[in-house]
Amino acid sequence: MEQAHTRLIAHLNERIAAPDNTPLYLKFAETVKNAVRSGLLEHGNILPGERDLSQLTGVSRITVRKAMQALEEEGVVTRARGYGTQINNIFEYSLKEARGFSQQVVLRGKKPNTLWVNKRVVKCPEEVASQLSVAPQSDVFLLKRIRYVDEDAVSIEESWVPAGLIHDPDAIGISLYDYFRSQNIFPQRTRSRVSARMPDSEFQEHISMDDKIPVLVIKQVALDQQHRPVEYSISYCRSDLYVFVCEE
Amino acid sequence: MEQAHTRLIAHLNERIAAPDNTPLYLKFAETVKNAVRSGLLEHGNILPGERDLSQLTGVSRITVRKAMQALEEEGVVTRARGYGTQINNIFEYSLKEARGFSQQVVLRGKKPNTLWVNKRVVKCPEEVASQLSVAPQSDVFLLKRIRYVDEDAVSIEESWVPAGLIHDPDAIGISLYDYFRSQNIFPQRTRSRVSARMPDSEFQEHISMDDKIPVLVIKQVALDQQHRPVEYSISYCRSDLYVFVCEE
Repeated sequence: MEQAHTRLIAHLNERIAAPDNTPLYLKFAETVKNAVRSGLLEHGNILPGERDLSQLTGVSRITVRKAMQALEEEGVVTRARGYGTQINNIFEYSLKEARGFSQQVVLRGKKPNTLWVNKRVVKCPEEVASQLSVAPQSDVFLLKRIRYVDEDAVSIEESWVPAGLIHDPDAIGISLYDYFRSQNIFPQRTRSRVSARMPDSEFQEHISMDDKIPVLVIKQVALDQQHRPVEYSISYCRSDLYVFVCEE
Repeated sequence: MEQAHTRLIAHLNERIAAPDNTPLYLKFAETVKNAVRSGLLEHGNILPGERDLSQLTGVSRITVRKAMQALEEEGVVTRARGYGTQINNIFEYSLKEARGFSQQVVLRGKKPNTLWVNKRVVKCPEEVASQLSVAPQSDVFLLKRIRYVDEDAVSIEESWVPAGLIHDPDAIGISLYDYFRSQNIFPQRTRSRVSARMPDSEFQEHISMDDKIPVLVIKQVALDQQHRPVEYSISYCRSDLYVFVCEE
């Protein structure tokens, strides 16, 4: 950690000295983001205090504070009163808005990607049928995607949608919810069940990680304005990268 | 599983033949509950179909169905259309009502217990202070309890409560929320963050389990009517026994 701080200060001084007109607090914030991107700073690391940062870079405390505020607004750091500033490198899983995921990844200076593995009509399995309130064996779309951060797969998501709600699967881009909205379907409420287990062989096939890291399993039913189930999904997420959040 | 079914049928026939006036569907339901309690039936096991149960016990299908409905209402089984009847032996963690936990345990034919490990005033740690909106190092109650099902510890829960909200810690029984209500404090909203990790040595000290089972970590802030934080809690739960549920 000490060494990371020393290197961060070196990067900061280098960036601050660069002859361009970028405001100082932005140079500062940008350098911290790059340090997270490169892995120099990791989730949970605490940054040096504002006073130290100011003294070691010759930048005023007001500017340091402004940089920290900007980083906090972007979700790159968390600041707790009197506790210091902590790197936040975890993705929050809440509503299944692809934009939510992509935004969070981009804000951490990384590149999000979503790969559709499957978009096809299947006979609805019994467990899913009861969640979607459709007849077992009726036609449903199975949408399966893998989410990536840079080159690393971080989660697998399977969604089942009653076939009548999707007219053109090719029109579904990164966000299933954007497609829903284009069809005047507005998912409003979500019921979630969150559990954990060790990765199975199928998960490990897609996602290479230390097999000592549990998988967070999130099962959600999304309901539209008329409380009609429009999607049932099961997401398998690396628990070292995701936290499930909800407010009720 | 086949063997479990054979033994279940034997227990059913024995109970049905017993010379007492308990209605048949209750004898039936009671026998299934006892089979869960004894471990003969486990979470996720699927019961024989209604037709088979009827034929193998000589009890009418209407009575079998009535028994299944009673078990479903008590949360002992889950029935999915066309899928059959599945044993449900998982505890749902939602609002932190002790009654919720106790009820769920009792309904599964088991004995709940809560052991207070700690009820004392401490200086508020920084992480907790920011969640409770109190000054770091101010006085807060730390309440720590271990929950048991029969003889087995299943979760550890730590709660922090601003000291001013608890006048008599000895008056806190199994349910902190009952105590809150007696003080005219009504927790209304909850913010939750759910993650998973492998059990650490402290968890394993209290809870003996296969160390391949992850721990579900649930962090919650409870807010009262005025949106004032009244409790911050961190619960560590066996992930083979708990699922976190929420609706938003």
